[in-house]
Amino acid sequence: MTTRREALGVLGGAGSALLGSFLCGQATAQTAGLANGQQTAPDGPWPYVKLDPQAVAERAYKGFLSGHCMYGSFFGIVGELAEEKGAPYNGFPFAMLTIGAGGMADWASLCGALNGSALAISLLSSDPKPIVDDLFNWYQSEPLPDYHPVQTPRVEITTRSVAHSILCHASVSRWCAQAKVTSFSLDRDERCAWLTAACAKKTVELLNAQAEGAFKAAYPIPKEVQECRACHDKGSALENTRGKMDCAPCHFNLGTEHPSVKGKKI
Amino acid sequence: MTTRREALGVLGGAGSALLGSFLCGQATAQTAGLANGQQTAPDGPWPYVKLDPQAVAERAYKGFLSGHCMYGSFFGIVGELAEEKGAPYNGFPFAMLTIGAGGMADWASLCGALNGSALAISLLSSDPKPIVDDLFNWYQSEPLPDYHPVQTPRVEITTRSVAHSILCHASVSRWCAQAKVTSFSLDRDERCAWLTAACAKKTVELLNAQAEGAFKAAYPIPKEVQECRACHDKGSALENTRGKMDCAPCHFNLGTEHPSVKGKKI
Repeated sequence: MTTRREALGVLGGAGSALLGSFLCGQATAQTAGLANGQQTAPDGPWPYVKLDPQAVAERAYKGFLSGHCMYGSFFGIVGELAEEKGAPYNGFPFAMLTIGAGGMADWASLCGALNGSALAISLLSSDPKPIVDDLFNWYQSEPLPDYHPVQTPRVEITTRSVAHSILCHASVSRWCAQAKVTSFSLDRDERCAWLTAACAKKTVELLNAQAEGAFKAAYPIPKEVQECRACHDKGSALENTRGKMDCAPCHFNLGTEHPSVKGKKI
Repeated sequence: MTTRREALGVLGGAGSALLGSFLCGQATAQTAGLANGQQTAPDGPWPYVKLDPQAVAERAYKGFLSGHCMYGSFFGIVGELAEEKGAPYNGFPFAMLTIGAGGMADWASLCGALNGSALAISLLSSDPKPIVDDLFNWYQSEPLPDYHPVQTPRVEITTRSVAHSILCHASVSRWCAQAKVTSFSLDRDERCAWLTAACAKKTVELLNAQAEGAFKAAYPIPKEVQECRACHDKGSALENTRGKMDCAPCHFNLGTEHPSVKGKKI
C-alpha cells in the first residue's frame, strides 16, 4: 500500500496532498488543497522525531488542567515537538482543540483524549491508521488510567476501569460506577486528566515504535466484535453498518430474533 | 461570561491563550501554551469574516471526494477563508483531518462532518459552544442530507433520514436501512458527501449569524433527552453520566426496574 508520505513525495510535499487509498476502502487521489503555492505549511504529515513518553505525558496532564482532554493529548505530543523543534509545530493553533472536551463540546461522543491523539498521529505519521486502531483497542480493553502524574494531583485516583468503548459517555459512566463517584466530581475530572496523559504517552510509544520500524499491533479488534462484523460490516451478508467499536455496551439486548452469539455480554 | 476572544484580548493574542470558563463547567484560566513568544500563529480564535454558504458547501463537497468527511467540512470552511484571505488560514495542515473519516479512522464514533465542523467553529468563534450545540441538535433531528451538489453527483440521492444521533455508526445504519442500500455502497458514500456539504453550509450560516450578532439557537436539546438528563446528568440525583446525545437509540430497552419515561421510543 502506498503510504501518505510516499504519495506526498511524488508531488514534492507542501502545497499539495496526494493521499493513499487507505481511507474507507475508497480509492482517493488527492486532497482538494488550495491553489498551487497558496499553503504556507506542509499539508502532509509533519516530520516526527522520537519523543520521551514521560515528558509527553506530563505535558498532556498539565494541558488537560488548562484546556481539557482533546487539547491535553494533542498538545502533550505536538507541543513537545514545538518546544523542541519550533516550526512548523509552533504554528499550530492548539487552543482550537479545547472544544473537544467531554466527547466534543460536552456531547460525550468520542473521548477527547482519543480525538486529540488520533489527530496528532495523523499529523505526524505517514501510516496513521494502524496506530490509531491499536490505541483505540488498547483504550477499550485496558484498565485505565494507568498513569500517575509526577506532580501532586488534585486528588488521588485509585480506581481503574475497562471502558469497553471509545465514547466519553460510556467510558465516564463505567468508571464512575466502579469508583462510586459522580460524573461531575473532581475525582472524575482528575481521572480524565490521568487518562489524557496515559493516552498521549501510549500514542508516543506507538509513534516511536513506528519510527524505529518496530511497530506491531498488540490490540487487535476483539473476537466478539469481529463476530458481529462478520454479518454486519464491509463485505458481509447484511453490510448494514460500519465501525470497530465494541458492540455489546449498546447492543446489550439483541432480542429474540437475533441468532445467538458467542461474544461475552458485559 | 467572558468569551474566549475577549479573554485573549487581555493578553494580546498570539503566544498565550486565556480561556473563558465555558468548558465542562470547570473554571479554567489559561491553556498551557508554549513558552512566551514561541508560537508563530495566534493560538486563540482566528478572525472570521462572513462566508458564502453555497461556496462553502461546494468546497466541502469536493473536499469530501478527496479527503472524506472531517477534512471536507473543515476544509470547506477554513479553506474558503484561506482562499480569500491567505494567512493564517493557509498555514493549517488540512490533510491531518482525513483521519476523521468514518467516525474517526473508520471507528464510526463522532460523525466526521460534525467533528470537522466543530473544530472549524472552535477555530473561528470566540463563543463556539452554542453554535456547536445548535449544529449537533440540527443534525440529530433534521431529515438529511438536505443539500444537493451543483456539480453532477456520482449518483443521485433521494433518501433523507433523521439520524437521532451524532455518531457515524447510527447515522449511517439508519440512513442505509431507509435507503435500502449497503453501508459501503457508492450511494452511502455519496450521501455522506452531501451530508458533509450540508454540515459545512449549516455551520457557516450559524457563524454568519453570530458574526452579525443575530445568532439564536433554533434546536434545543430535545425534551426526551432533557428528561433523561434530569436524573442522570450534572446536578441530578444520580449524576452518573454526561452528554447531550439522544439517549433512546442505544437505551432502547430500559428494563423493568427503570421508572417509566414519557420520551418517545424510536
